[in-house]
Amino acid sequence: MEHKLQHTISLLACTPAALNALLRDLPETWTLRNEGENTWSAFDVVGHLIHGEKTDWMPRAKMVLQFGEKRTFEVFDRLAQVRESQGKSLGELLDEFARLRSQNLAELRGLNLRRQDLELRGRHPAFGVVTLSELLATWAAHDLTHLHQISRIMAHQYRETVGPWTAYLGVMQCAGHSS
Amino acid sequence: MEHKLQHTISLLACTPAALNALLRDLPETWTLRNEGENTWSAFDVVGHLIHGEKTDWMPRAKMVLQFGEKRTFEVFDRLAQVRESQGKSLGELLDEFARLRSQNLAELRGLNLRRQDLELRGRHPAFGVVTLSELLATWAAHDLTHLHQISRIMAHQYRETVGPWTAYLGVMQCAGHSS
Repeated sequence: MEHKLQHTISLLACTPAALNALLRDLPETWTLRNEGENTWSAFDVVGHLIHGEKTDWMPRAKMVLQFGEKRTFEVFDRLAQVRESQGKSLGELLDEFARLRSQNLAELRGLNLRRQDLELRGRHPAFGVVTLSELLATWAAHDLTHLHQISRIMAHQYRETVGPWTAYLGVMQCAGHSS
Repeated sequence: MEHKLQHTISLLACTPAALNALLRDLPETWTLRNEGENTWSAFDVVGHLIHGEKTDWMPRAKMVLQFGEKRTFEVFDRLAQVRESQGKSLGELLDEFARLRSQNLAELRGLNLRRQDLELRGRHPAFGVVTLSELLATWAAHDLTHLHQISRIMAHQYRETVGPWTAYLGVMQCAGHSS
């Protein structure tokens, strides 16, 4: 299936408002609890999304355009949010995520990428050669994997509370899948 | 952990706006496609949530209050949305879901349930005796299981498009879990 950049941008544009509507008014029971030792809360996930806006997606896209396969992407720091979110409220993080995403999408649109530009190639530290198309599609799918994670983290808080219904709730059987 | 009804209501109140922000402005690539034969699209899921508002959660809660264990809940029709969503747009479904949820939460608040009321018992067609607490907690967790499902259905559309990154995206490894 051909990658339609406009579809990717549409999804990327919706995520901040969706997370804002889901999380902003919730009590901390839902947003600050995690799934156990060394796992993330919804608060942690929003911090991780912010770090991606700052260091991952657009910086890598610009690296592809400027250097192609000659320069390898920086390794993404999956724990940076622990440091960067300290002392902030969830509301502040949601605002910051929305602002950065909006800026990044304005910059992406400003690149006026043509269909053939999506085939440009860059170099990932683990995968080797990747295309700009794959990078930008992953930006959107990465939002979805973390929405998937947030719904699972929140459901985990009610694992006992739902009693026998846990058998009918797929999210309660989700093992996480991510490393 | 004690079930705080106010936390359940907070989550139930957020879901319609979260789904609206996520889905309303997306192209149909994201909202009308499913994960293959006999699976649901995001559109189908919103229809299913509507059917739950009409026939499942509050009708069952009221049955517990009125009849206790003496009357068994009606079996929930998991395919009703195929019929009931016909000819409607996703925008119409999102509006209908928001309206019904808002009405149901007003009715739930109006019951002024006390802590001890949550221990009242009803009869589920498969599980036998369940508590009002379990039923109401499941209403909220059911929102989360379907948010989990929607993020997975949408990610499925980019399974090929993300190239090698599929290995890093937990949502792409999610097998669905639900029957």
